[in-house]
Amino acid sequence: NAGIDNINTFRKLHLFERPGEVAMALAASGNLSVTQSIVSMVTEGLKNPETGEVETLLNAPSMFKAAQLVGRAMREVARTDSENLERHGGHFDAQLLLGGQLKDRRLRLFLIYAAGNFIEATSDTPFLQIGELKYGKPILDRAVTFETDLSSALKLGLISMDSTMRSNLAVGLPIDLAILPRDALQIAMSHRIEPGDAYFENLRHRWSEALRATHQSIPRPPYAGVDGR
Amino acid sequence: NAGIDNINTFRKLHLFERPGEVAMALAASGNLSVTQSIVSMVTEGLKNPETGEVETLLNAPSMFKAAQLVGRAMREVARTDSENLERHGGHFDAQLLLGGQLKDRRLRLFLIYAAGNFIEATSDTPFLQIGELKYGKPILDRAVTFETDLSSALKLGLISMDSTMRSNLAVGLPIDLAILPRDALQIAMSHRIEPGDAYFENLRHRWSEALRATHQSIPRPPYAGVDGR
Repeated sequence: NAGIDNINTFRKLHLFERPGEVAMALAASGNLSVTQSIVSMVTEGLKNPETGEVETLLNAPSMFKAAQLVGRAMREVARTDSENLERHGGHFDAQLLLGGQLKDRRLRLFLIYAAGNFIEATSDTPFLQIGELKYGKPILDRAVTFETDLSSALKLGLISMDSTMRSNLAVGLPIDLAILPRDALQIAMSHRIEPGDAYFENLRHRWSEALRATHQSIPRPPYAGVDGR
Repeated sequence: NAGIDNINTFRKLHLFERPGEVAMALAASGNLSVTQSIVSMVTEGLKNPETGEVETLLNAPSMFKAAQLVGRAMREVARTDSENLERHGGHFDAQLLLGGQLKDRRLRLFLIYAAGNFIEATSDTPFLQIGELKYGKPILDRAVTFETDLSSALKLGLISMDSTMRSNLAVGLPIDLAILPRDALQIAMSHRIEPGDAYFENLRHRWSEALRATHQSIPRPPYAGVDGR
């Protein structure tokens, strides 16, 4: 605990680091009151009922324990809030992505479900998504592999978000980005894409134009009667 | 009723026509026992509790009345089956697309929900989808307008299905197609795409290659730190 704790909170992205020792990113989707409560709990500390210790993300001894802590915070918020949420026509709904690494340990990425259970990304399933995920999943399924470099992965993530934003107008800018490379033990890059971001606008335009050119270049279906005459 | 009734049933697509008088297509998604019961009811006839008449799709006096008939069949199946379905861990889940035209009336397309209510396609919302729809919706949102010709619409529909099949491996061939042009009063084309269909395989290959070339041609994100160093 000699280092300095940096905690940066964006709208749905929360960055935790003690550079050189530990760095984590926590991304949230779902009911904002639920996810904000979870983030507060794992930042300020949540008592572990088995050990009596107050645990925070930045003092977790491993990424697995950190994911368990987030899951426990999820269950704690569900216990206190879900009944009242449902009484008022709401719904307990939250998913979180937790990625990070501790010094001398490996980089890991978890998806924590509303039930507090979680799964981990693997070389076979190298990306995880939360929130409005289906519209943007096909391009990731096609192009992202365990070998994809960070820059390409970011580009593909932005193409994926573009599709999502076009098909669900409730999804919009800003987009908060963070890159946490293996063994860096600090957030190498964080950036907010706001309306007017030149790179993102260019990417959206190029992608649209290329899709249009491609579907126009594919021959007409040869099936008899296809022209409706 | 002078004409000959043609009723063709594929796995999830049902075609009803009395050429020159009326032609309809009914596509189904969801619980197969539910949708098959609905199709049987609207084929064999369902008594209208208000008039006492036995109504079928092919004797409906308008497309709106035909959609109401499908909705009534949906509610009838829900009434008899949903409690037992849920008792056995199932779920009453069905959506149907009904498109068609009667002589001297206009071509209409409806989406009938599990509650038996329905919406209609309009010039602003020129396509409707049922089933596993989100993966394949972005390309339709980008490219399909009210002015899109039938051949292009079919091509875009197949691209959409390709994305869906890649992202949800439970969705697969065959794909049953039908084209019902305005004022034709008969199904102009119906075709089943099976594994090995040369056109569809070529379309999938071209689309994949073009997406790969496009995302590779987009410049790297310019944000500082993006290469992780």
